[in-house]
Amino acid sequence: MTEPPPNPFPDLSRFFAPRRVALVGATEDLAKFGGRCLKQMLDFGFAGDVFPVNPNRPQVFGRPCFPALSALPALPDHVGIVLPAKACIEAVAECGRLGVPFATVFSAGFGESGTEAGAALQAELVATARRGGVRLMGPNCNGTVNFVDGFAMTSTGTINGPRRPAGDIGVVGQSGGAAQVNVMWRAQQLGLGISYQSSSGNDADLDIMDYAAFMLESPRTRVVLMLAETVRDGAKLRALAARSAALRKPVAIIKFGRTEAGARAASSHTGAVTGADAVFDAAARQLGLIRVTDTTELYEAAMLLRQPVLPAGNRAAAMAISGGNLVLLTDLAAALGMTFPPFGAETQARLRRLTPGFMAVNNPMDLSAGAIGTKDVFGEAARAVLADPAVDIVVPVVTLGAAEDIRAVAAMAAGAPKPVPILWTGACLDDPALTPQVLVAEGRAVFRDSQPCALALSRAIRWSDFLRRREGAAPPCRPAGVEPERARALLGDGPRTLSERDSRAVLACYGLHGPAEAVAADAADAAARAAAFPGAVALKVLSADIPHKTEAGVVRLGLRGAEVGRAAEEILANAARSAPGARIDGILVQEMVTGGQEMLLGMSRDATFGPVLTLGFGGVQVEVLRDVTFRLPPVTAEEADAMLSDLRLAPLLAGLRGAPAADRAALADAVARFSWLAADLGDLLAEVDVNPLAVLPAGQGVRVLDALVVTA
Amino acid sequence: MTEPPPNPFPDLSRFFAPRRVALVGATEDLAKFGGRCLKQMLDFGFAGDVFPVNPNRPQVFGRPCFPALSALPALPDHVGIVLPAKACIEAVAECGRLGVPFATVFSAGFGESGTEAGAALQAELVATARRGGVRLMGPNCNGTVNFVDGFAMTSTGTINGPRRPAGDIGVVGQSGGAAQVNVMWRAQQLGLGISYQSSSGNDADLDIMDYAAFMLESPRTRVVLMLAETVRDGAKLRALAARSAALRKPVAIIKFGRTEAGARAASSHTGAVTGADAVFDAAARQLGLIRVTDTTELYEAAMLLRQPVLPAGNRAAAMAISGGNLVLLTDLAAALGMTFPPFGAETQARLRRLTPGFMAVNNPMDLSAGAIGTKDVFGEAARAVLADPAVDIVVPVVTLGAAEDIRAVAAMAAGAPKPVPILWTGACLDDPALTPQVLVAEGRAVFRDSQPCALALSRAIRWSDFLRRREGAAPPCRPAGVEPERARALLGDGPRTLSERDSRAVLACYGLHGPAEAVAADAADAAARAAAFPGAVALKVLSADIPHKTEAGVVRLGLRGAEVGRAAEEILANAARSAPGARIDGILVQEMVTGGQEMLLGMSRDATFGPVLTLGFGGVQVEVLRDVTFRLPPVTAEEADAMLSDLRLAPLLAGLRGAPAADRAALADAVARFSWLAADLGDLLAEVDVNPLAVLPAGQGVRVLDALVVTA
Repeated sequence: MTEPPPNPFPDLSRFFAPRRVALVGATEDLAKFGGRCLKQMLDFGFAGDVFPVNPNRPQVFGRPCFPALSALPALPDHVGIVLPAKACIEAVAECGRLGVPFATVFSAGFGESGTEAGAALQAELVATARRGGVRLMGPNCNGTVNFVDGFAMTSTGTINGPRRPAGDIGVVGQSGGAAQVNVMWRAQQLGLGISYQSSSGNDADLDIMDYAAFMLESPRTRVVLMLAETVRDGAKLRALAARSAALRKPVAIIKFGRTEAGARAASSHTGAVTGADAVFDAAARQLGLIRVTDTTELYEAAMLLRQPVLPAGNRAAAMAISGGNLVLLTDLAAALGMTFPPFGAETQARLRRLTPGFMAVNNPMDLSAGAIGTKDVFGEAARAVLADPAVDIVVPVVTLGAAEDIRAVAAMAAGAPKPVPILWTGACLDDPALTPQVLVAEGRAVFRDSQPCALALSRAIRWSDFLRRREGAAPPCRPAGVEPERARALLGDGPRTLSERDSRAVLACYGLHGPAEAVAADAADAAARAAAFPGAVALKVLSADIPHKTEAGVVRLGLRGAEVGRAAEEILANAARSAPGARIDGILVQEMVTGGQEMLLGMSRDATFGPVLTLGFGGVQVEVLRDVTFRLPPVTAEEADAMLSDLRLAPLLAGLRGAPAADRAALADAVARFSWLAADLGDLLAEVDVNPLAVLPAGQGVRVLDALVVTA
Repeated sequence: MTEPPPNPFPDLSRFFAPRRVALVGATEDLAKFGGRCLKQMLDFGFAGDVFPVNPNRPQVFGRPCFPALSALPALPDHVGIVLPAKACIEAVAECGRLGVPFATVFSAGFGESGTEAGAALQAELVATARRGGVRLMGPNCNGTVNFVDGFAMTSTGTINGPRRPAGDIGVVGQSGGAAQVNVMWRAQQLGLGISYQSSSGNDADLDIMDYAAFMLESPRTRVVLMLAETVRDGAKLRALAARSAALRKPVAIIKFGRTEAGARAASSHTGAVTGADAVFDAAARQLGLIRVTDTTELYEAAMLLRQPVLPAGNRAAAMAISGGNLVLLTDLAAALGMTFPPFGAETQARLRRLTPGFMAVNNPMDLSAGAIGTKDVFGEAARAVLADPAVDIVVPVVTLGAAEDIRAVAAMAAGAPKPVPILWTGACLDDPALTPQVLVAEGRAVFRDSQPCALALSRAIRWSDFLRRREGAAPPCRPAGVEPERARALLGDGPRTLSERDSRAVLACYGLHGPAEAVAADAADAAARAAAFPGAVALKVLSADIPHKTEAGVVRLGLRGAEVGRAAEEILANAARSAPGARIDGILVQEMVTGGQEMLLGMSRDATFGPVLTLGFGGVQVEVLRDVTFRLPPVTAEEADAMLSDLRLAPLLAGLRGAPAADRAALADAVARFSWLAADLGDLLAEVDVNPLAVLPAGQGVRVLDALVVTA
């Protein structure tokens, strides 16, 4: 698997912005879904034609109602369907016959029922749509809101009242309640604006990635917020992430069903070490998707991610009239990896001039003493700090304030060349109409509390860092000398567990080798060959006629220098004595591997992403600490090295207490090579375990000590 | 150190609820602190006498103004002082002369300035107060709000407007902005009510623990929320926690300055392993203080903690009309240790009768299909679930809803015999006046998002569990046979580092021993004594005349059975040969310790709490993983065993991969004994390190392999 194609997503322009729309199952009865859905569409002010379809009514809400889709005066771009489950299939078939490109099936009673009948109905629905060339949202969904063009086909009460202005944030989820209430409506309550919203239900045909891709590509969207109850197709998520990175428009995602996912993952050996949720987590980071924990964090992250300026780094400054919140923000931001460096000399001098007698010019900066009685000292100080090249982010902190002061802070933030999120925990004292919502609607990022501010900042920093690294990095490139065809031949056909020897042979095709070995013709040759190995060697007489070699005295371990020749002579003599007449094929000279750091390198299959790499520390550590990390293959050696930073035991590789440093470069190279094995042959493989992989001292490389390959 | 006395806190009734109050530095100028403070007091509706004091004004705000405290018509219970720093001292002296019991010094320019002059002024202020018998809030503070009795002496704008009704939550902090804006005002915005609030500044005399203790003891307070920039006196915090537990009124605390605290801790060896913040964290858990991360979490926790019913356990049920939020809540709550057990058979039957045809009766329960068209199915289902003995907590989840439905949920929660926090992410569709705030003001716990709901639940569960454990547990009791006086004598006077031998002797006074040993008279005696040890032994000829014993051949290791007698004869012979005429004092027979789990047991001094226990895994693990945990001494063996649950490597003790289980009981006993050493002699000790402490297989006990004692 290499990079996905640039944009495999369908054009959903007419889905989101139809010129004409029909609703099958339209009614005036607001106790019914069809009634609520039609009313919302009309109230939302859709400017195109709306064709209600219902054979039992001549008109609804004062509009002519049509008996069937075939009776419409013009072809709709998008048809909504609210009918009993079975009847939906006929309606979709009719769409196909007429040439309708898009339909939304709101009705339930399909796959979500968990019944066989429901699953069969859903399969028939999709097959019908495919036959007719109709692309489908749903079934069991709550539809679409398009604030840009004024089109809504959904029952949600969140759009009641005057239509809110369009903004720059797309929201997509399978759930109606969570995506429309928790995220869209709540973001609007906060002062943010939405461009498009989808609640897509069962995702039987089109899925959340398709809607998200449309929103990303739209010039009206700066950030996409996703709520994923399931991500069925990992390759599609990779494609979406690739578009997100190319367009420099972030996707923040919340993945529901962590605990279910963990249970599902228990069936996979390597996945079971920490559960497939950890795989999703690692994949999201690798792909530049911003994963969050609760729905609030989606729009809180969006406040910063939609800004025109991203943080150039993690160096923050904070300033306030009141100190308590400064300490709290610093604590929480530092815990998320931000630093608060001392200001540069020029900034310090400027701040001192600004507040004579106010000597402590620290970061974070409590201006309480200095600010008293001086006009706009806060704004002046903020401008000085903003200009400091040692600072990437400036956070002004406000509790209660006068409108003039709050307006000054907001104006400073608006024109700043660096991100200036405002932490405003209280209210405006002299103008109750000046609220955080007002500033957010004007484009500012305003946080009510330190933790969301610090979290959103850490996400903006990570996104910015991801884009920077992506620009600097070469894409993964298949290493020279790998032999996919030879490996493929070794795997054979059909599922089976390869022997250790065959497993090693597969790994060797990608340059992962066991201890060095050579076959010597005689004792002198053995001594000569052993001299080429850096450390001690083991000797073994090669002979199919001597089955129990240790008992026969034809194996010797831990030999060095002159010992080797003598031992070779002895074991040849032992062979002659214990098995006279045995055919001797030579002496195996094998490098002894001792003192390396034992690690685990594996590939397993994830239900979403297919082949997944696992890297961790071996032995009891894996069992107790679950100190493993995951990536989607392939990875570069640089990315492989970065995987080590995820591991708590990584300092062991540096060489503690006088131990030699491990060969980290060779490890990274081995992981990258292994990742190409997984990328090239992953579809043929159920599982690969290299455990232990010995990482020798720097310069001495890595050795496969044991290996297991299971084909799919 | 044993349990603190029951209530060492001063009676602050007249501080919080004075009958008469004076404000020195009163003015009408609202640009000045004294003006704002007086105006707030008058606007807040204080019913007692208010005496403005200012020699330059005949009256302020239409009230007579007095030239000096000595000119007042009656003695105030509480005097506020807004004067230049130096003048405050004279004002406090005057309070003392007149017999005023309480003063609040608002002015800055004392210890917080970081200057020597400021520190000296603060010391003089406190000395003056002590001499005069005046108890002091501040300096550099923003005073007190008492909603119960309608008294406010503070400049904060958070109490502008009509006085809010008193509630059951006390708020105390050193910071004005954070405690008054982030917590008091924000909690009120959420619908909660405050009983008392203090912003106490430098805490030069009275401190946050004193105010918190007053609030706790008041029948008008159910929960105290603390914001601690510093906790100077750990013993006082322990006393406060003891009152909290005895009264069954929780204290939730946010500790500011984590990162500073970490830096300070770097000077202490054991503390430096994870930083003193980890000590505070462990102490808070041990004492039943509910530590939170951000200020919002204080009042979010309080919503549940103030309820009359606490969770009986961690078994939750959740139910909704919309599924997305259920999955999210379940995910986040499960990550915090809650379970969602299947409903009991009776509940399942009841639920099935309630919603015929709705077959999936799962927990969490998505009622979407079953609830449609049935009146109050949600409430009926909730009542069925509430009655299930397998469920400790029920969370109804609402997004958008009709007032009738939301009212039904709230009514069910109000009468419930179990905690019923409501997760309401949206709004009321048909009554904009019905908001979460309304329900909170009526006493319900209403959360806007899953994560705060799950977090607050986990805190209520932990508090309830703490109270239950406390009721069941015996207090720590000094083990029999410990010899504090002998240990004290071994420590001697003045700071020094004891030899390993002396360090071991100190530990032995508390029953912590090294490998077993005995002195044998001859070879036969050595064999007999060795037979009493379970495993292998080492032998050593005891003789002051043989300095290099290994070279002299008078040491032998790893001996078993008949080997012992032979080896003893050999080393005696070696002694006679290599050092003829040497005086032989016998043969040391010493148990060989192998195969134990190496742990670390230590005591260090924390700036807040004094002696602190550390328990962790030894060797490279401590260095890389920082897998250590802390407790304040003394602890019972049960608590010591619970410490192990904090350690990631604890499963190693259970015996993995065929290794024998470690003697966990002996380890717990040793930790408890060691904790008494720290409790009894902690003030004399700078540091004790038992590293490694070998924990042998079950039944074989623990052994001190190396020890270091440093006295203070």
